[in-house]
Amino acid sequence: MVTGWPRADIAAVDELASFGVATVHEAAGRIGYLGPGIRPVHLGARVGGTAVTAVCWPGDNLMIHAAVEHCRAGDILVVTTTSPSADGSFGELLATALQRRGVRGLVTTGGVRDVAELHAMGFPVFCAAVSAQGTVKATAGAVNVPISVGGQRVVPGDAVVADDDGVAVIPRSAVAQVLNDARTGVEREDRARAAFRDGELGLDRYGLRKILAQQGVEYMDYRSYREAP
Amino acid sequence: MVTGWPRADIAAVDELASFGVATVHEAAGRIGYLGPGIRPVHLGARVGGTAVTAVCWPGDNLMIHAAVEHCRAGDILVVTTTSPSADGSFGELLATALQRRGVRGLVTTGGVRDVAELHAMGFPVFCAAVSAQGTVKATAGAVNVPISVGGQRVVPGDAVVADDDGVAVIPRSAVAQVLNDARTGVEREDRARAAFRDGELGLDRYGLRKILAQQGVEYMDYRSYREAP
Amino acid sequence: MVTGWPRADIAAVDELASFGVATVHEAAGRIGYLGPGIRPVHLGARVGGTAVTAVCWPGDNLMIHAAVEHCRAGDILVVTTTSPSADGSFGELLATALQRRGVRGLVTTGGVRDVAELHAMGFPVFCAAVSAQGTVKATAGAVNVPISVGGQRVVPGDAVVADDDGVAVIPRSAVAQVLNDARTGVEREDRARAAFRDGELGLDRYGLRKILAQQGVEYMDYRSYREAP
Amino acid sequence: MVTGWPRADIAAVDELASFGVATVHEAAGRIGYLGPGIRPVHLGARVGGTAVTAVCWPGDNLMIHAAVEHCRAGDILVVTTTSPSADGSFGELLATALQRRGVRGLVTTGGVRDVAELHAMGFPVFCAAVSAQGTVKATAGAVNVPISVGGQRVVPGDAVVADDDGVAVIPRSAVAQVLNDARTGVEREDRARAAFRDGELGLDRYGLRKILAQQGVEYMDYRSYREAP
Amino acid sequence: MVTGWPRADIAAVDELASFGVATVHEAAGRIGYLGPGIRPVHLGARVGGTAVTAVCWPGDNLMIHAAVEHCRAGDILVVTTTSPSADGSFGELLATALQRRGVRGLVTTGGVRDVAELHAMGFPVFCAAVSAQGTVKATAGAVNVPISVGGQRVVPGDAVVADDDGVAVIPRSAVAQVLNDARTGVEREDRARAAFRDGELGLDRYGLRKILAQQGVEYMDYRSYREAP
Amino acid sequence: MVTGWPRADIAAVDELASFGVATVHEAAGRIGYLGPGIRPVHLGARVGGTAVTAVCWPGDNLMIHAAVEHCRAGDILVVTTTSPSADGSFGELLATALQRRGVRGLVTTGGVRDVAELHAMGFPVFCAAVSAQGTVKATAGAVNVPISVGGQRVVPGDAVVADDDGVAVIPRSAVAQVLNDARTGVEREDRARAAFRDGELGLDRYGLRKILAQQGVEYMDYRSYREAP
Repeated sequence: MVTGWPRADIAAVDELASFGVATVHEAAGRIGYLGPGIRPVHLGARVGGTAVTAVCWPGDNLMIHAAVEHCRAGDILVVTTTSPSADGSFGELLATALQRRGVRGLVTTGGVRDVAELHAMGFPVFCAAVSAQGTVKATAGAVNVPISVGGQRVVPGDAVVADDDGVAVIPRSAVAQVLNDARTGVEREDRARAAFRDGELGLDRYGLRKILAQQGVEYMDYRSYREAP
Repeated sequence: MVTGWPRADIAAVDELASFGVATVHEAAGRIGYLGPGIRPVHLGARVGGTAVTAVCWPGDNLMIHAAVEHCRAGDILVVTTTSPSADGSFGELLATALQRRGVRGLVTTGGVRDVAELHAMGFPVFCAAVSAQGTVKATAGAVNVPISVGGQRVVPGDAVVADDDGVAVIPRSAVAQVLNDARTGVEREDRARAAFRDGELGLDRYGLRKILAQQGVEYMDYRSYREAP
Repeated sequence: MVTGWPRADIAAVDELASFGVATVHEAAGRIGYLGPGIRPVHLGARVGGTAVTAVCWPGDNLMIHAAVEHCRAGDILVVTTTSPSADGSFGELLATALQRRGVRGLVTTGGVRDVAELHAMGFPVFCAAVSAQGTVKATAGAVNVPISVGGQRVVPGDAVVADDDGVAVIPRSAVAQVLNDARTGVEREDRARAAFRDGELGLDRYGLRKILAQQGVEYMDYRSYREAP
Repeated sequence: MVTGWPRADIAAVDELASFGVATVHEAAGRIGYLGPGIRPVHLGARVGGTAVTAVCWPGDNLMIHAAVEHCRAGDILVVTTTSPSADGSFGELLATALQRRGVRGLVTTGGVRDVAELHAMGFPVFCAAVSAQGTVKATAGAVNVPISVGGQRVVPGDAVVADDDGVAVIPRSAVAQVLNDARTGVEREDRARAAFRDGELGLDRYGLRKILAQQGVEYMDYRSYREAP
Repeated sequence: MVTGWPRADIAAVDELASFGVATVHEAAGRIGYLGPGIRPVHLGARVGGTAVTAVCWPGDNLMIHAAVEHCRAGDILVVTTTSPSADGSFGELLATALQRRGVRGLVTTGGVRDVAELHAMGFPVFCAAVSAQGTVKATAGAVNVPISVGGQRVVPGDAVVADDDGVAVIPRSAVAQVLNDARTGVEREDRARAAFRDGELGLDRYGLRKILAQQGVEYMDYRSYREAP
Repeated sequence: MVTGWPRADIAAVDELASFGVATVHEAAGRIGYLGPGIRPVHLGARVGGTAVTAVCWPGDNLMIHAAVEHCRAGDILVVTTTSPSADGSFGELLATALQRRGVRGLVTTGGVRDVAELHAMGFPVFCAAVSAQGTVKATAGAVNVPISVGGQRVVPGDAVVADDDGVAVIPRSAVAQVLNDARTGVEREDRARAAFRDGELGLDRYGLRKILAQQGVEYMDYRSYREAP
């Protein structure tokens, strides 16, 4: 259990979160997305926070309990297991303990349970499974060590952004730069949206016709297409 | 990129869509369903349209941009990749461009992102994944060629029907016949529903007791069952 | 088709259901959960009943029709197939027949269709897939034999509890004991919830610090951690 | 840990095994097959024995160690976990202990490791995964209780047959009948094989043309097929 | 059941097969590969033939029996199901019937059984699963209609090539062109192989350094990399 | 593309490899295993080396070509993609280039092709898929940056060990310690093997009876078990 990790600036994290996961992921150079396997149980939340990490043994949530005391206001707890496990290692009692400390949500490569209760108490969870299967508290793991989720590295203190598109993690040291790029990206998207509403094509806006031509893409009438050998 | 495909009659497609995917699939002789892997992100939509198709390289959405100019009012864009890819190749900017042209929705074997925004703008998407993972625009594919999704062939101009049960595609040349059969099917279902509400059993209504008897199915008391070797 | 199975006491089943799947599963000693693969189509239901079982051939729903006449008020129909099949073997017509008889819901290892209509009529379904793919009525299976779902045994007459966390099955003979333990469990959870709201840690409440110490878990500053070989 | 289960007659089990999994499964009325997810690591073995069962916690092999003392000559150890786990809970040390006692092989819904060594020592394993991931010995489960694998019930003492097609389990009380039916089945297959070698068609041998005709299957020239609407 | 499809020239198919699946797939413009889900059961075969197709109901092999009489020397039978099914619908008896007719192998999106016997008789199978699970002969499908496997269209008479890399299908009308391109491709590969053996880099041979430079890829010492923010 | 990473001592890596993946993983404290999803295509190899890493775009092998010039004798190339892709981005031409440089094998989260040829040339590959699907060379990624595979971090220069059990990666800085622990572990295993051959039980050797007793595990006759409520 490692202590004292510096956390990303929470105001910056909050602004990042307001842009949403897809925009943040693009601003970061298309890295940091934890993949389509980690989903919100209920759609509609958008949340940001600073990462506290826990590594559990499969079928065991001892280290989630151990992680609680490492959490403080503005954090998001990110849980993984040493080998894949969908068991419901997190439920509304643990959420109660985390909510008391100002924690904003849970991200896990495993399962959660009590999802109706979690939704009622306004505690967003992003997980690989919903499972009522209970866990033991027998085998130790680690708290607040760097972990890997979906091929991405999550260091304690990193910025975590989560919404209906899933979860993205931005290294603490990159938050300022990504925030800046995200602001620029949003403006660029605003202009593109306006142009598309006016009928402009992405083919023209992004100069893609040249790429198609270089690769030999041509237009052909469907009758000719059907007669091709 | 193939042009000029004749489209299914949009009024017929609209009536088909009103019956829902399951009824249309049955009326077509139990073909055309794209499988349980393509799901709506938000439940509650029911939509029909004529197919425009795009084939993308994995991790690349160049051909979705190329497909936009092939779309017109009443179309549904159907996207696949040359090998499986869950990346979020479609989001609210592309949806804006399509909505401007009167396109009614997106079907994809890949991933979508900005799903909260897509829902807010009323653009239904049916997909294999939600993923914020961004894509490049580097490698060409094809637009408006026949494609295969879930073992079903989708030819540009075919009728596409989508709702909470998934997506079905009906060949343009079969739309009139399927529409006719669907009308008959709905009436038959109405009568069956009324009968079931009155307590009739499917065993009797569909003459199934004979099939059970032919295959040697018998009734046995649970005490005898337990004592069987 | 086996008849006459004694059913679990419906009042006890109802009280069990009120506790929810996760609590019931814990009270039963962490058994009986059918796994994270069986999910509600729409979130928000919580239901209990007594099991009627059906075993179908893949792509065939003959035995679901055969099972209807075995169902009565308070039952939940539990369906499996002899080999995995996601086909939509259950829809609103069958639900109409079941609802007429007072059946409270469906649990299936396969697929369901007409899910918008099922939701509208208030008939909860818990399934492995949503699929419009139709089925035939050609091959016999069994009704009201013990089946295995998710590694758990389901005997006709057992108590079935289902909610947003999935489905749990409690043997009829164990219902009284599990109900008793669930009541105690809920009280224990109530006390834990109150304690967690007051800031107590699970580490202390459950005596977990000792386990961590026994396994050599120590606290380390992040700077020391980074410098470790 | 349950003791004293009567075991299927080992001579009968040996003869069953000689017929192979597919034939035994057919003779049993197409039941008892543990599914395509449990595979031999190396092809080429064919083995039969009597079941000893173990239920482990995920990531934990305590109960495999506990099961060893329940095993004797002619047994096959059948292992499952309370929730899915691919961890390598079994390797060559445990195989050494089992081989010493005359155990003939291992079947597991989990993972094995040391597979090169297991092959070298001639100990066949049938598993869902190969995984070097180690396990702990911290949480209890059960030994020699009935378990469910792939939707099939395995009772201690049942006959287990395994080969390149996977694993089948026959209830102890049914072994004599299944053996009898398997002998008949093999003779029937011998005649069919000879007939097929002589050029007879299954369509004729099994009277299938009638079924095709009843369902309206017709022959059509490919030119007519292509011109159909 | 459609008859009379013209078959690809068998001498051309044989030469294609000699090049292997990967080379043929490249020569065809990277199309026609049936995907990584269809695998040989035993490694080491390389086979080519002309496609006969069958569409079965899940859990049913009636149409495989019906397809046998459509097969002749040089064919490869390609089987799919109307919805996914891993059941062992094909075994050594059917292989005996096919081998008698000079059929060279089986490709199926489903399962096969008797795999030890199939290997012993030298009949190669390429499948999605090995499963002893038996099938019925109750529900009709189709023989020799175009089917879709892995997103690729298979028309009766097309060239099928299969080896340890899986299966590729080349449209009959494209066989001559693909054969020509494959010959050229093999020569190009021979030269590249020789160059690589001499130490040339693909970066240089294929002019890839320019692409890397255009996309801003640079070389950086690992010490600088570690110090980057 | 990062250069100059120090590599683990090759003699130490070779000795580690001789112990096999499972033993090395245990000696490392049960970390570093890349999971059961990465498998050898042909069984029978055991290899060790130092990691060179490459990150590719899905469907693109540009960075594998770029990685070749970073490889030298004793290396193993470890490839991943920015999002999951099974395409066959590696074949015998690339293997020829690597083999020329003394590279000992390939590990990839993606697919390989030409597997018959790779086996013939004695170049071991450990991969998630075999796929003939070809890739382009259009989009840049990275070479020799730390990557995450199966939840484990792989830093260039780390020790890679691979055999029939899969792949394990040991941090360069930990190699000496793990080697030491592995030697001790092998001796401990040798003693356990001898004891098990003599009939000792793991229950006794590892003191597990106490754990069973603490958790309330008891022996019960099967007749009592059957009569329990």
